[in-house]
Amino acid sequence: MGRVTQRRTITRVTVTPAPDGPAGVSAKVGPDTLIAEEPLEIRVGPAGTPRPALAVTMRTPGDDLDLAIGFLLTEGIIRSAADVRTAQLCAGDQEANTYNVVDVVLADGVPAPQTDPSRNFYTTSSCGVCGKASIDAVRTRSQFDVAADGIRVAPALLADLPDALRAGQRAFRTTGGLHAAGLFDAAGRLVCLREDVGRHNAVDKVIGWAARQDRLPLAGHVLMVSGRASFELCQKAWMAGIPMLAAVSAPSTLAVDLAEEAGLTLVGFLRGQTFNVYTGAHRITGLPQT
Amino acid sequence: MGRVTQRRTITRVTVTPAPDGPAGVSAKVGPDTLIAEEPLEIRVGPAGTPRPALAVTMRTPGDDLDLAIGFLLTEGIIRSAADVRTAQLCAGDQEANTYNVVDVVLADGVPAPQTDPSRNFYTTSSCGVCGKASIDAVRTRSQFDVAADGIRVAPALLADLPDALRAGQRAFRTTGGLHAAGLFDAAGRLVCLREDVGRHNAVDKVIGWAARQDRLPLAGHVLMVSGRASFELCQKAWMAGIPMLAAVSAPSTLAVDLAEEAGLTLVGFLRGQTFNVYTGAHRITGLPQT
Repeated sequence: MGRVTQRRTITRVTVTPAPDGPAGVSAKVGPDTLIAEEPLEIRVGPAGTPRPALAVTMRTPGDDLDLAIGFLLTEGIIRSAADVRTAQLCAGDQEANTYNVVDVVLADGVPAPQTDPSRNFYTTSSCGVCGKASIDAVRTRSQFDVAADGIRVAPALLADLPDALRAGQRAFRTTGGLHAAGLFDAAGRLVCLREDVGRHNAVDKVIGWAARQDRLPLAGHVLMVSGRASFELCQKAWMAGIPMLAAVSAPSTLAVDLAEEAGLTLVGFLRGQTFNVYTGAHRITGLPQT
Repeated sequence: MGRVTQRRTITRVTVTPAPDGPAGVSAKVGPDTLIAEEPLEIRVGPAGTPRPALAVTMRTPGDDLDLAIGFLLTEGIIRSAADVRTAQLCAGDQEANTYNVVDVVLADGVPAPQTDPSRNFYTTSSCGVCGKASIDAVRTRSQFDVAADGIRVAPALLADLPDALRAGQRAFRTTGGLHAAGLFDAAGRLVCLREDVGRHNAVDKVIGWAARQDRLPLAGHVLMVSGRASFELCQKAWMAGIPMLAAVSAPSTLAVDLAEEAGLTLVGFLRGQTFNVYTGAHRITGLPQT
């Protein structure tokens, strides 16, 4: 995991404001640990032909095959890990293998994604971006019905998730610069946690891991993410069959709209002992029914 | 600005842990203000032909022409606002004008962007994502030399920027869910502030505004952003000729590498009265020279 973080020399500055004169300044030069960010190119296509690059995402290296599989799954390009014949890190067009290209060979009969920009323009996505070239291409269709999912959790269980997520974040503690996605079961047990510079990559890594373990749909699970709950995170949860999404920060209008449509429970501002429920409050015990 | 936020009914929950028994729960149903997120499709091409969609970004509505111009500029598709003949909100393929499509007509002689996915795959970008289909396409080349920029600021000026940014964030106060980018001059005066669900959109809106005001390159300015300093934010600053980027949170390794190469001053963890300087410390007065 040496590529996940790197040491650099930085200058740490502290300003001491002075009411009657120039502020005091102390500065120390020393080592610091930074979180790695590198491009990952995802190539996909059938066996026996050159496979075109489909997308590049700026990600923290590690769990790259999970990331690629999770990305293809949440983008609706594959329906399960069985749709992939092989996935491997390769050198791509570079002379040396930089471990920044994943080559995905689709199983026989799985249609290759449209890359005609006037039709479907699959590209990567993170933190509120949808890299599609037309609005029609933004929406993907889930094969899973999360609306019927019978999971019910107590408010106290939800309130414990942020601490559980943070406790599992190894790289955050050394860098302070990472997003995380944690998959929990209905008893609040952490099933899988991934960290990345992009929240959406962290979610794709979790979902790709689950797909490769043949655990989809992720019925009866809660996905907890650092940061905001965007439209795209709701969509990724739905694509993986996850019935409940909880975020440390705010959801957007479109996230709430999609959660409503999908029958997803959407929780935001989950921090300390408080949270907001935007949709699907019936899955949380003891709340007034809206 | 009615589309920037929307009111929804939510359930606010507070859990009171009890050491000897089940936790107490209070829940209140009431209105809340959410930040709007809607797709913006950017079409670009020469006059007189159908212009293809180049990218879709999930953004907070408002300043959409600035966003489109800033995006095209920081992606290296245009060099100044003079490269654009007209830019307007249009209905696109929808029957009614949803104000979610910007149609950009390039000036005569300005080459249309490559949309061949095997070559250059321009798409949108936000929060650590690069929507390019190959790693080679990730890097853009700036027409501006920021390394030679002579701006120098005092540490106390930098320490004041987060409060100035927050004070200017109107929508954040009502929703708690927004990123911001603020352009400051060398005296610490706020020149332009934009908010968006995506940090990168907020930056593109600032840069697009400046381009349309014919203010590029933004020599002698500081760009302050909420959240992390990603590779792409450094690249956008460089593309606009901004010599100093300051972020509330952590930079990534690739952001530091690019800042080093560009000669950009990169400041991170700027909060309270402290900050870290990752590159270009010579532009901040009174620091030890690394």
